[in-house]
Amino acid sequence: MGRLINKSKSEIGQSPFDLSFRGKKRSDHILMRVIDFDPEKVLEVQLNEFREIKQFMETDTVTWLNVDGLHDSSVIEQIGEIFELDPMMLVDVLDTEQRPKVQEYDECIYISMKMIRYDEKENEIHKEKLSLVIANRLLISFQERQGDVFDPVRERIRKHKRKIRNSGTDYLAFALLDIVIDNYIYIISTLGEKIEQLEDDLIDNPTRDMLEQINDFKREINYLRRLIHPSREMINALSKLDTELFDHEENGVHWKELQDNINLATETSDGYREILSDMMNIYHTTVSTKLNDIMKFLTIFSVIFIPLTFIAGIYGTNFDNLPELHYEYSYHTMLAVMVIITIGMIFYFRSRKWF
Amino acid sequence: MGRLINKSKSEIGQSPFDLSFRGKKRSDHILMRVIDFDPEKVLEVQLNEFREIKQFMETDTVTWLNVDGLHDSSVIEQIGEIFELDPMMLVDVLDTEQRPKVQEYDECIYISMKMIRYDEKENEIHKEKLSLVIANRLLISFQERQGDVFDPVRERIRKHKRKIRNSGTDYLAFALLDIVIDNYIYIISTLGEKIEQLEDDLIDNPTRDMLEQINDFKREINYLRRLIHPSREMINALSKLDTELFDHEENGVHWKELQDNINLATETSDGYREILSDMMNIYHTTVSTKLNDIMKFLTIFSVIFIPLTFIAGIYGTNFDNLPELHYEYSYHTMLAVMVIITIGMIFYFRSRKWF
Amino acid sequence: MGRLINKSKSEIGQSPFDLSFRGKKRSDHILMRVIDFDPEKVLEVQLNEFREIKQFMETDTVTWLNVDGLHDSSVIEQIGEIFELDPMMLVDVLDTEQRPKVQEYDECIYISMKMIRYDEKENEIHKEKLSLVIANRLLISFQERQGDVFDPVRERIRKHKRKIRNSGTDYLAFALLDIVIDNYIYIISTLGEKIEQLEDDLIDNPTRDMLEQINDFKREINYLRRLIHPSREMINALSKLDTELFDHEENGVHWKELQDNINLATETSDGYREILSDMMNIYHTTVSTKLNDIMKFLTIFSVIFIPLTFIAGIYGTNFDNLPELHYEYSYHTMLAVMVIITIGMIFYFRSRKWF
Amino acid sequence: MGRLINKSKSEIGQSPFDLSFRGKKRSDHILMRVIDFDPEKVLEVQLNEFREIKQFMETDTVTWLNVDGLHDSSVIEQIGEIFELDPMMLVDVLDTEQRPKVQEYDECIYISMKMIRYDEKENEIHKEKLSLVIANRLLISFQERQGDVFDPVRERIRKHKRKIRNSGTDYLAFALLDIVIDNYIYIISTLGEKIEQLEDDLIDNPTRDMLEQINDFKREINYLRRLIHPSREMINALSKLDTELFDHEENGVHWKELQDNINLATETSDGYREILSDMMNIYHTTVSTKLNDIMKFLTIFSVIFIPLTFIAGIYGTNFDNLPELHYEYSYHTMLAVMVIITIGMIFYFRSRKWF
Amino acid sequence: MGRLINKSKSEIGQSPFDLSFRGKKRSDHILMRVIDFDPEKVLEVQLNEFREIKQFMETDTVTWLNVDGLHDSSVIEQIGEIFELDPMMLVDVLDTEQRPKVQEYDECIYISMKMIRYDEKENEIHKEKLSLVIANRLLISFQERQGDVFDPVRERIRKHKRKIRNSGTDYLAFALLDIVIDNYIYIISTLGEKIEQLEDDLIDNPTRDMLEQINDFKREINYLRRLIHPSREMINALSKLDTELFDHEENGVHWKELQDNINLATETSDGYREILSDMMNIYHTTVSTKLNDIMKFLTIFSVIFIPLTFIAGIYGTNFDNLPELHYEYSYHTMLAVMVIITIGMIFYFRSRKWF
Repeated sequence: MGRLINKSKSEIGQSPFDLSFRGKKRSDHILMRVIDFDPEKVLEVQLNEFREIKQFMETDTVTWLNVDGLHDSSVIEQIGEIFELDPMMLVDVLDTEQRPKVQEYDECIYISMKMIRYDEKENEIHKEKLSLVIANRLLISFQERQGDVFDPVRERIRKHKRKIRNSGTDYLAFALLDIVIDNYIYIISTLGEKIEQLEDDLIDNPTRDMLEQINDFKREINYLRRLIHPSREMINALSKLDTELFDHEENGVHWKELQDNINLATETSDGYREILSDMMNIYHTTVSTKLNDIMKFLTIFSVIFIPLTFIAGIYGTNFDNLPELHYEYSYHTMLAVMVIITIGMIFYFRSRKWF
Repeated sequence: MGRLINKSKSEIGQSPFDLSFRGKKRSDHILMRVIDFDPEKVLEVQLNEFREIKQFMETDTVTWLNVDGLHDSSVIEQIGEIFELDPMMLVDVLDTEQRPKVQEYDECIYISMKMIRYDEKENEIHKEKLSLVIANRLLISFQERQGDVFDPVRERIRKHKRKIRNSGTDYLAFALLDIVIDNYIYIISTLGEKIEQLEDDLIDNPTRDMLEQINDFKREINYLRRLIHPSREMINALSKLDTELFDHEENGVHWKELQDNINLATETSDGYREILSDMMNIYHTTVSTKLNDIMKFLTIFSVIFIPLTFIAGIYGTNFDNLPELHYEYSYHTMLAVMVIITIGMIFYFRSRKWF
Repeated sequence: MGRLINKSKSEIGQSPFDLSFRGKKRSDHILMRVIDFDPEKVLEVQLNEFREIKQFMETDTVTWLNVDGLHDSSVIEQIGEIFELDPMMLVDVLDTEQRPKVQEYDECIYISMKMIRYDEKENEIHKEKLSLVIANRLLISFQERQGDVFDPVRERIRKHKRKIRNSGTDYLAFALLDIVIDNYIYIISTLGEKIEQLEDDLIDNPTRDMLEQINDFKREINYLRRLIHPSREMINALSKLDTELFDHEENGVHWKELQDNINLATETSDGYREILSDMMNIYHTTVSTKLNDIMKFLTIFSVIFIPLTFIAGIYGTNFDNLPELHYEYSYHTMLAVMVIITIGMIFYFRSRKWF
Repeated sequence: MGRLINKSKSEIGQSPFDLSFRGKKRSDHILMRVIDFDPEKVLEVQLNEFREIKQFMETDTVTWLNVDGLHDSSVIEQIGEIFELDPMMLVDVLDTEQRPKVQEYDECIYISMKMIRYDEKENEIHKEKLSLVIANRLLISFQERQGDVFDPVRERIRKHKRKIRNSGTDYLAFALLDIVIDNYIYIISTLGEKIEQLEDDLIDNPTRDMLEQINDFKREINYLRRLIHPSREMINALSKLDTELFDHEENGVHWKELQDNINLATETSDGYREILSDMMNIYHTTVSTKLNDIMKFLTIFSVIFIPLTFIAGIYGTNFDNLPELHYEYSYHTMLAVMVIITIGMIFYFRSRKWF
Repeated sequence: MGRLINKSKSEIGQSPFDLSFRGKKRSDHILMRVIDFDPEKVLEVQLNEFREIKQFMETDTVTWLNVDGLHDSSVIEQIGEIFELDPMMLVDVLDTEQRPKVQEYDECIYISMKMIRYDEKENEIHKEKLSLVIANRLLISFQERQGDVFDPVRERIRKHKRKIRNSGTDYLAFALLDIVIDNYIYIISTLGEKIEQLEDDLIDNPTRDMLEQINDFKREINYLRRLIHPSREMINALSKLDTELFDHEENGVHWKELQDNINLATETSDGYREILSDMMNIYHTTVSTKLNDIMKFLTIFSVIFIPLTFIAGIYGTNFDNLPELHYEYSYHTMLAVMVIITIGMIFYFRSRKWF
């Protein structure tokens, strides 16, 4: 299974109205949670039957339905029927390989985005698809699996936070997307801290497994960048959306903040990418400098012995007439000459700054 | 024959109205298949005579004529005459080296694009030109050779799929282009899976033929990118086309989906290109690290013997007056000194972390 | 703590109205200084109580409140209450990780930017957040810690400088931002001078610590670029701002100057980045050329002795029948041959320009 | 003489109305050919006197004057006088270093472009300037030297080709520019075929002269790109030109085709540039891998002999008390030990996959 | 002093109305020359007193005041007073580090640009600031030091050149800027010729000082590019300037020519940069190939002697029982074996194409 993309042959040429789950099953059953609120009261329910949702729809409150698990397309289809959603939107919800997307429909807006999770142990980033359907007093969010990512928003709804309880679904959507993007920044920051730590270690003393770590971080940062970059386009499209569902007067500042945050995320991930690339260079330079020093030292060491061994070789020959062999102090002279040669060579190499 | 482009000297300066096949013959005869449908009924016919097509043109049904094989320009010319197509459009149909293109004519729209096929055995991508002529209730598709790429659409037409049978030629064109782009994504995904597999193998244990594989994949991914990139522009132009033949109200969402898909294809192919480039680096680093380790080991090994051999050389000299030779234990002393030197050097090298 | 970015898990999902300091505490207490001026008179006060500020607000003078220290969100909150600032603006003031930003509010404009400081000893650049709130006759500036960066502006106000005393808060804001950007240019210029000095040294005689210095400068220049680049966008947005608070007729030329200066800063930092990259190449080339020369010399030196040692080895064998051993001048002949071989080899290597 | 650009000191500060030939003389005399045609008849004449041209100007036919050779500015000046051309246009005609350009004048349009020729023997691309002056029923083309590049267009005019004989000067200009751009594509395709052939050879067996070839092709492709890229801009400007001389309704499709073709040329040349860059990498990798293998083999070979030679050295010493020398089978034992050591080392190196 | 930029601490926070020279003093005194002309007559005067200028201002002629030397801000101030120039413009004139700039004032236009000079001996490019103030019938040009750059324009004015004498200050400004940009192209062309010459030499026989030359050229070309690039923007702004001082109807074609020329300059400098980068690669490849060949040869040479020396070593041992020593022809046999081994190895290495 490719990590960047997955497309099976059977998906080619499917009608854009064919409902089938196109992804990896990440959850066993489908969990549906409803939060229904207005400035006065909050109601939280976990649904067993889809039909129970109807009661919330007749009221004037804001209803947020959160669906965790996408693998059962029949469930998604029933949700579509109850809320009279466009079939194409349901297909989009089920296609987990899709690019981040904003699509305006007659009565609602469809937004999709990647959520990411960082597994520190494996040093691996996992992606998950999030779809939001924003209607007048209804917001449906679809996640691939159960998670507590949106708990801070639930908490803010419960805790009577002024703004969120008084606003419509657009502000709620902002709050959810804000968490997703904050999460991007948090993960980049977590990775970044590790990368900067590694950088310090690298400058102190590079070891071989640092290279592997650099490569690992590089892969994850690149993976992250490919996930985040297309979102930037989507958030831009979103903040320019001309729809009655969005109160730009009131909430425009929030959409602008989302743009700022996604830009911060992309810039910072690009920054860490450059840093990793520089670290790679530093590693290679340091390692090759060290290696060169060793090889130079060893070569110089060898070279010093070469003439000495040669001299010994000469006096090891068995010529009948080799007069030096018979002088009394020729052995000692030879040793002395060898010492002089050695000192001379060391001196010469030093003077040329070879070691 | 160049793979990227092919232009013979004789083509230079030809009138843009000269009909001649500019490409490689990929098919022996020309196959013409018609599907004629309306919401009520479907009719499938394989034509022997071009003139037979006339019967379908008098009805109110949507007629899709699929022509496989472009090598016989006289056939193409006759098709042009029957449907009163602009001669320049026919020239375009026959020019297989052309860039992806959208051209509006008075009564119809001409679209051309590259279709690709991936030969897993050879690890090679093959391109083929597809031309679509979209008229009011008529769509003609020209392929360079017979293939079953569009079978899923035929199947959907036969199977009474609500949307396709109730829509005009614009939705049919979308369905065909969608298959072409889905095919891009599928091939990228197939290549990608192999690349990611190779990446895992590479990190475990790099072997020389992996380098060749990386280079092969790189060449194919680059080839793919050059085929896909220009299509993006074309799809953009298409979705902004202001023509009565396109029902943007009804089908705009589909053109937007095509844009999303072609963007997904380009982004993913760019992503794999980066991954291959990183893999290349990892390969080189690993290989050079391994080589350096070997050379360092061998050098250190040699260096240890150098002073030992020198010492033996000294006592191999034949000086008359070499007092050490005559002491009883000088041979054993020499061996002992050699052992000490060896241990000392190993210790020294270890302490400096040279091996 | 990451240098590029810092985001703790607890910040995810916070309401955009939650006031809490998101940064590193850089100052012990919060210092509030007021300069109140009109063309006629100047009044400088250091506030102990926030409420004291009220007196300045009732007059027609321009009031500049400078707040040093952001760590105590309650103080910031009180400032917000007194001036009736939008709560979101206060959150922005406290978020030190934010991108440079311009935000228009009903009665005021919020600007944030990074100020930088260069620690020459550590060769390290430090960033600090500056926020400006520009209202009708009031400008509030927030800094993370006490500093004398804005003293030249204070001086100009005191010294009765024609323009600054006669203008409103927009010109004052320009004067402050101008200092920030001038500071960028000054720091780039300081770094640049050192880099160019290093470049000269490098060409004369590269030493190993130069490589470290290059890497250090590269890191700081890249860090700087990442801080400065986003400001460019912000300054552009600022100079196009359509607001009554800005007298574009009168001060447009100043905003244009800011744009020119920030462009100069980015271009120059990009230029030094290229220079550092070239220096890296020069270092590597020089070092590797030097190493190659040494290794080549040593290898040639060794190679010359190899046949000589071999010859000596042959006449060191103990064969009974080795006629050359018994000729009178064979030892001298051998030495002569060795000299000839040596000269021949040196000659040969020279002729091929090997050293 | 620089190949990319040539500017002599004397040209600086010349009045833009100074007529002087700024280029290399490429032709001995100036050849002037006229083709005069309308749908009914064609007349071809080679002019001896400029004044002869006048007869063609009084008729209603389309007159195409082709001037080969630019070195004599007085001739160009006379042409300018006869046709009342703007003096600046004449200066442009004579300046062969100019960028591709479109300039609208009151009664005519001036277009300039580079024509290229590929000398297969030298593997070198030559450029030549083409200027077109498009007036109502007159087109003048200026080339630096005689050539048969435009013969296909002459042929089409002679052969009563429907379109070209019925159209005005704009279609004729299109036909000429089309030839120029087709020529670009043809030359890229010729180079490309050679590059792809070299790529295949390279993968089979890289030899040193391939590197030179790669560098040669790289230089030519880069030279080509620098010539072609600026034309893209020019063709775009041309197709958007709002002038009565151009019948966009009728010929817009042709200008669009020119744009497509110039884009095809730039994209393909960029593609080959990338391919050459990859080939360079493959060459280096293959060569360095081969070298490393050789060095590794040789080093291992040497290393195996090192302990053996050392052992022999020990028993070559002349100690009085060296007991092993006197045992009967110690020589054979030594040889056996040496064999064992050799086998052991080979085994060890093999087991670590060192060769 | 940084070459790219220079900013002293004291400049930070200066009022934009503070007149002080911000640059290097390049001239001892300030030279003021006036050319006053109309179609009828020309008057050239060198001013001693600023006030003398007044006489020229009362006439209807075009007055061009050329000021060489900027170091004395009081002089500049007086000029400002006489002509009632905006104080900010004077500050700009004195700031030699500024980016190229166009600024419209009420009655005049301020243009600044870098002029460059190439010192062939030092292979160094020097920059100098040029400021033009264009008013109704007055043009003031400020240069940092005396020079003859503008002599061709003076000559054209003197020589009664039709156009320049009949036009206003806009055409004069064009003529001056044209010289500056022509100068860019000339210097690029001068450098380029040298670079292309070096390229040819490099391919023939690379020597070490070529590397230094490549690095030198690279530095200068990069320096040039950084000077030229920002001018492009400025020239664009200039040609779009909507002002009564510019007669776009009459002179638009000239501004367009400036744009073409500055584009030619940037493109060509970019082209040479690429060429230098390729040359660097060629150098490294050639040098490393040569080195590898030498090392390979030397290693093979050594390797051949290794087994020979070992064999000699064996027969140099002093074993009592070493039978081979006592055979009559064992010495000759040994020599023969050695010859065979040598030939065998050479043969083997050749067959594997190792040298």
